Amino acid sequence: MVSSCGQCDACDKDVEQYCTKAVWTYNSLDEEKQPTYGGYSTFMVAKEKFVLRIPESLPLDGAAPLLCAGVTTYSPMRYFGMTEKGKRFGVVGLGGLGHMAVKFGKAFGLEVTIISTSPRKKTEAIDVLGAERFLVSSDKEAMKAAAKSLDYILDTVSAAHELDPLLNLLNVNGKLVLVGIPERPFQLPPGQVIFGRRLVGGSLIGGLKETQEMLDFCAEKNITSTIETISIDDVNKALERLAKSDVKYRFVIDMESLHRSSL
Amino acid sequence: MVSSCGQCDACDKDVEQYCTKAVWTYNSLDEEKQPTYGGYSTFMVAKEKFVLRIPESLPLDGAAPLLCAGVTTYSPMRYFGMTEKGKRFGVVGLGGLGHMAVKFGKAFGLEVTIISTSPRKKTEAIDVLGAERFLVSSDKEAMKAAAKSLDYILDTVSAAHELDPLLNLLNVNGKLVLVGIPERPFQLPPGQVIFGRRLVGGSLIGGLKETQEMLDFCAEKNITSTIETISIDDVNKALERLAKSDVKYRFVIDMESLHRSSL
Repeated sequence: MVSSCGQCDACDKDVEQYCTKAVWTYNSLDEEKQPTYGGYSTFMVAKEKFVLRIPESLPLDGAAPLLCAGVTTYSPMRYFGMTEKGKRFGVVGLGGLGHMAVKFGKAFGLEVTIISTSPRKKTEAIDVLGAERFLVSSDKEAMKAAAKSLDYILDTVSAAHELDPLLNLLNVNGKLVLVGIPERPFQLPPGQVIFGRRLVGGSLIGGLKETQEMLDFCAEKNITSTIETISIDDVNKALERLAKSDVKYRFVIDMESLHRSSL
Repeated sequence: MVSSCGQCDACDKDVEQYCTKAVWTYNSLDEEKQPTYGGYSTFMVAKEKFVLRIPESLPLDGAAPLLCAGVTTYSPMRYFGMTEKGKRFGVVGLGGLGHMAVKFGKAFGLEVTIISTSPRKKTEAIDVLGAERFLVSSDKEAMKAAAKSLDYILDTVSAAHELDPLLNLLNVNGKLVLVGIPERPFQLPPGQVIFGRRLVGGSLIGGLKETQEMLDFCAEKNITSTIETISIDDVNKALERLAKSDVKYRFVIDMESLHRSSL
């Protein structure tokens, strides 16, 4: 975000992301009705409140995706109370958002399970990211054996999928929070929330105050996004790879490369 | 409930209703594999923990439905934090559960809106139960005008209905809790929880500790269920009326009538 109305209830309560007049950094219209270009901009104009302080100890490139993937996963973990040490935390989808959720889960002292459609991600999940457990969502036996084995789930997947098998994984009082937005509605069997007092919540990025808190938390815990830094000349190649999910886990454009670019 | 295993996590945490071995007062099998008959029983055997104290000041007949409709609505209001004075509380469905939710809402100092399919219930809702507002769910204009006007919703309806128009009524951070169980799954558009950080939860009756707390709260606030007391001879007539939703709001059988019954 680069601005919001500053006067509504959402702005007043530090959740500017829910202000109906929020101006997004990307694909939005600014106050002069000019389009915003996000990470492709040479410069950006933002209200002072919307400028954050990157702690000295964080590298700028590894910190950049924290402002989206970082706060999008950190904020619901805080708001919905998914941070109690020792609790069992499931992360659905191991991409830009999912890998940040795993890092926060570890930092909060949670026992992390990654739930993915891709068995080939298991080694990375366990050996590199340090997750305790890996579940392949299409493996019905494994999913059944894992019934009630989680306290929290953060679902980062935007592709169509079912909630029912995920709700089965939750214990009594379990919480499932959505941050990915599939196009079609989910099916929610009422018994899945009633018999077990579960909840299904949702969350969108985070407010400015909480985004700063998240950055400071990352500095304290030495957390950054796992990235590939590219020059502006490689943007089109990166987009092709992105379409094939071929990136661990975010591309970051080094804007200094503009000075030596052929574009 | 008349008993539960006493050893599982749910029993340990005072949420015996989620114990997978709970024995229900009605339509369940007791520990000797005999069926339980609920309110039709001449006597009932229960573990000591499952016997509650009805406060002296409460009439037994008006207190009886508190053990089901009362705690079913009280418990989620407490657990999901729907009790903050001055907040706007919607109750979907004005029956046995709904009318209790209205009474608790008033007792917590909430501003109560009743959402119903029956325009004819408006007078009762406002004049007798003291709700501040009445919305007819089929009135699309009124429902649209009420967008974002509620903080909490308790949905007591077991007939098929849509969640989407209800979620539209919720402000940012709004909570919708289900206590009725329609047969088919709900449609949950992910944007409805994500853009607004809402949650959809569910809840089943309450544990023993909380049921006692609810009874004591009712005594303190002078709350009982609105009932019609009948003799055992009128049971079949009452069931016919129940099928037509013709009761305000619960039938209670006076078991003393057994002694003079012709049955």
